Amino acid sequence: MQSREIHLKRRPIGTPVAEDFAMVTVDAPPPGPGEVQVRNLWMAVDPAMRGRMSDAKSYVPPFALDAPMEGPAIGEVIASNDPVFAPGDLVFSRLGWREVFNAPASALQQRDRSALPTQAWLCFAGMPGLTAYAGLMRIARLQPDEVVFVSAASGAVGSIACQIARNTGCKVIGSAGGPEKTAFLRDVLKVDAAIDYKAEPNLTKALAREVKAIGATGIDVYFENVGGDHLQAALSLAHNFARFAVCGMISQYNVTDAPTVPRNLTMIMTKRIRMEGFIALDHMDLESEMVERMTAWNAAGQMASAETVYEGIDKALDAFWGLFTGANIGRTLVGFLG
Amino acid sequence: MQSREIHLKRRPIGTPVAEDFAMVTVDAPPPGPGEVQVRNLWMAVDPAMRGRMSDAKSYVPPFALDAPMEGPAIGEVIASNDPVFAPGDLVFSRLGWREVFNAPASALQQRDRSALPTQAWLCFAGMPGLTAYAGLMRIARLQPDEVVFVSAASGAVGSIACQIARNTGCKVIGSAGGPEKTAFLRDVLKVDAAIDYKAEPNLTKALAREVKAIGATGIDVYFENVGGDHLQAALSLAHNFARFAVCGMISQYNVTDAPTVPRNLTMIMTKRIRMEGFIALDHMDLESEMVERMTAWNAAGQMASAETVYEGIDKALDAFWGLFTGANIGRTLVGFLG
Repeated sequence: MQSREIHLKRRPIGTPVAEDFAMVTVDAPPPGPGEVQVRNLWMAVDPAMRGRMSDAKSYVPPFALDAPMEGPAIGEVIASNDPVFAPGDLVFSRLGWREVFNAPASALQQRDRSALPTQAWLCFAGMPGLTAYAGLMRIARLQPDEVVFVSAASGAVGSIACQIARNTGCKVIGSAGGPEKTAFLRDVLKVDAAIDYKAEPNLTKALAREVKAIGATGIDVYFENVGGDHLQAALSLAHNFARFAVCGMISQYNVTDAPTVPRNLTMIMTKRIRMEGFIALDHMDLESEMVERMTAWNAAGQMASAETVYEGIDKALDAFWGLFTGANIGRTLVGFLG
Repeated sequence: MQSREIHLKRRPIGTPVAEDFAMVTVDAPPPGPGEVQVRNLWMAVDPAMRGRMSDAKSYVPPFALDAPMEGPAIGEVIASNDPVFAPGDLVFSRLGWREVFNAPASALQQRDRSALPTQAWLCFAGMPGLTAYAGLMRIARLQPDEVVFVSAASGAVGSIACQIARNTGCKVIGSAGGPEKTAFLRDVLKVDAAIDYKAEPNLTKALAREVKAIGATGIDVYFENVGGDHLQAALSLAHNFARFAVCGMISQYNVTDAPTVPRNLTMIMTKRIRMEGFIALDHMDLESEMVERMTAWNAAGQMASAETVYEGIDKALDAFWGLFTGANIGRTLVGFLG
């Protein structure tokens, strides 16, 4: 059997280009002792992969050169030399960017094939779901009837955060770029108000307008994905004792000169705001609770899928580029059977 | 009996000038029914009074015009028509900027004359003490053996924060402007390292150097009084899960164009930093615990006084101007018997 893999050939300088990568066809021998052979069905790409292409110090190690990159994937066991796994099992691994692979059983986690759509394990029941859930429930300590502002609300995590907040009985204001995405926020995610930040000359005024429009006086929770003007608007509209769960600040990642920064950081003091960064890996203990809630919400028709799908491993780099053009909505997935 | 008072005549535009104020001599009649007559011994001035001279919305109301300003004061009861207070009692009030006044008993709080030096009730056993204590103990949840960075460390609150942290068994790095203040940090407050931020072209490098010099790898707690470059340095040197207690951001208060802001706010996420604003008024429930700790530390010779004293109510405005020239060390007090 053969398998195609995407390798990192060299570390990109600035924006990654096609020459930084190679698609390599390798033999996929039968699994060795204790190994399991998996055929990937879906993998996800995300912006954090750009960080791992560099060798800068971070909380995850960089990708190795001349080896397949890593990333979350859902696959099906096709052969197994481990008693726990059997052909047909659905498994999660971090061994994406490849079609077929052998791995020790310890690199695989069983997933329930019947509970949810397969790709949900990479979306609202996967790390994006855990990120949104931990940020809102543990970091921000979300309560029903609060007002929640979500930036990058059409993104992989933001789209789930909007739905968790809505399902918890909160009012949700989402921000995204462009009319297609704001329509998605309103029509699919069912937020209470949507802001097209690209169409707003002053985001603080826009947020104030939408806060008023939903009958509120401010925001209680800010789910921060963006930074800059979005953070400034959230600070301006924050109620006293608001909680800001900082999941990312994507507007600041590629800024080399003076970044766009909030001019009102002092409001952290005057409004006694708690602003707390988090990464989902620190909150794996919440995973089973999160999956249980997501499964229940999904069964009740309260979790819309939010995905942009590319078909085939030969489209995996296109999927990755798509993350940075702003075109994708929700989680960006590569379907391996396309 | 007569009393001199400092009135606010008009709301200052920009930097306050002498013409915005008036010293007025008034009669001090005997106290009415239920009233207590107090002669102030000490009052404190602080930068927040500038805010109350304006009528911008804040968490405290603005000063009234053509009336004595308000501020923390310690005085002695000279006559009383209330059964709780007797001549000679030491009392705290918010009725500074005047020599003698009558007030209802409800405006006064008894203070123990024997436990502490009189002016300590405006300093380490007063609101600056509560501010430093609440910020470190409740907001930052300070633990022994941690590394604490304090900005504006020679200031009213910072000088106490340094000593609380030191007395709790932490290593303390303080930052202040100029060699006189850093000598004060080292010699009087006994910090482990002192940074003269005015002499450092790069505050992040300076903090990294001092962290290394005390045998540490980063900071666990940042007591934030300054903002801007100080916040940037603290973010850069923060350990994962560091806590930043935001007491103020004085570098940002008078900035009208683009403020000096941290370029590395994203570290809040990557390092999972909790940054939380607070004001002491929300933490009055800690007051008796704080006074108990301060009294014990003082008795053990572990609380140095940190005060700049102006003598006489006619020097009260000089004391206030002194806050903004950067000359004052510690709490700025006006002694009324000078």
